Amino acid sequence: MVDFKRSALLIIDMEYSFLDSKSPLFVDFGYEIVPSIKKILNIYREKKLPIIFVKREHRKNGIDIDKTRIKIFKKSKGLILENDKSSEIIDDLKPLKDEIIVIKRRWSSFFGTELDILLRRLKIKNLIITGIQTPNCIRATVYDALSLDYNVIVISDATASKTEEIQKNNLFDMENLGAKILTTDEITNILEKFKF
Amino acid sequence: MVDFKRSALLIIDMEYSFLDSKSPLFVDFGYEIVPSIKKILNIYREKKLPIIFVKREHRKNGIDIDKTRIKIFKKSKGLILENDKSSEIIDDLKPLKDEIIVIKRRWSSFFGTELDILLRRLKIKNLIITGIQTPNCIRATVYDALSLDYNVIVISDATASKTEEIQKNNLFDMENLGAKILTTDEITNILEKFKF
Repeated sequence: MVDFKRSALLIIDMEYSFLDSKSPLFVDFGYEIVPSIKKILNIYREKKLPIIFVKREHRKNGIDIDKTRIKIFKKSKGLILENDKSSEIIDDLKPLKDEIIVIKRRWSSFFGTELDILLRRLKIKNLIITGIQTPNCIRATVYDALSLDYNVIVISDATASKTEEIQKNNLFDMENLGAKILTTDEITNILEKFKF
Repeated sequence: MVDFKRSALLIIDMEYSFLDSKSPLFVDFGYEIVPSIKKILNIYREKKLPIIFVKREHRKNGIDIDKTRIKIFKKSKGLILENDKSSEIIDDLKPLKDEIIVIKRRWSSFFGTELDILLRRLKIKNLIITGIQTPNCIRATVYDALSLDYNVIVISDATASKTEEIQKNNLFDMENLGAKILTTDEITNILEKFKF
């Protein structure tokens, strides 16, 4: 049985560069999962459990952008830039003053970030994972979370991929890695019944 | 022979929390090394070689402060805080617009930071290390830099410790680890003669 008192909600990459239809990195299925994330977010806020927003942010000169994205970064000026609207978390999920934001430069939320030391300090053992995109940042984060001994619950309809097939295949693979896959309804039901 | 075209200057923790005499973390020998750092910094600026400022910064709620410093953090309100004068790099060494600043939460400049991916992108092989304090952040950074295959040059009079003995002992140990120890005069002489 998962001890949700020791759980944190991760919300990954829900920022304008991926959710603004004018952005070259626009993920057109991104907004579909916002209501699901919000449902879980509201429970985490109500229960005063840790909420961690993880987002990409890059320096204006592009020195910290993934090598595979240098071209598109140069072409498009203003991609996921620090101190810029493009790296802001969307208004619908706007972090409250005391909620944690972790900046990352690569797919995994743990790669070159302080996420692990924050989770240790908070005594977190279980991670609820939401956000975009499943085959990239979600899955890379899941590998590292499992490798670091966290229990991982991926929310199938609060994460998203370009196609249904990619989503299905990735959830299947992550379940085989040892992650638990639950729907938003399932996790909210469990959380509502859990004795905090 | 070190290829200084592939070198970067690291300036570690030269921020107000450590260099303001009213701060509880005041390092009273910190200002003594500023002229030495500045001499090397000027050469790096002139040669357009990479300069990386690394500094601590902590969230207001203290969740990312070292466990051994929680007490002093709580007692002193305003220790090395993000978006605060206390975590600003001192005016004498103020970074220019395009110089890189890396935020760290622990002693080593590599621990939970993007420093290594920046250095790789810049094709840096050699690190010139300056700043405070030698037995803490300097040495922790040196362990990781050597472990990651960088060549390391620690500048003996552009780094500092609480006492001359601590400084001497730490330089001795780092030399045994494989770091090169040079004075500011030595490194500036070498740099001035180097064919860029």
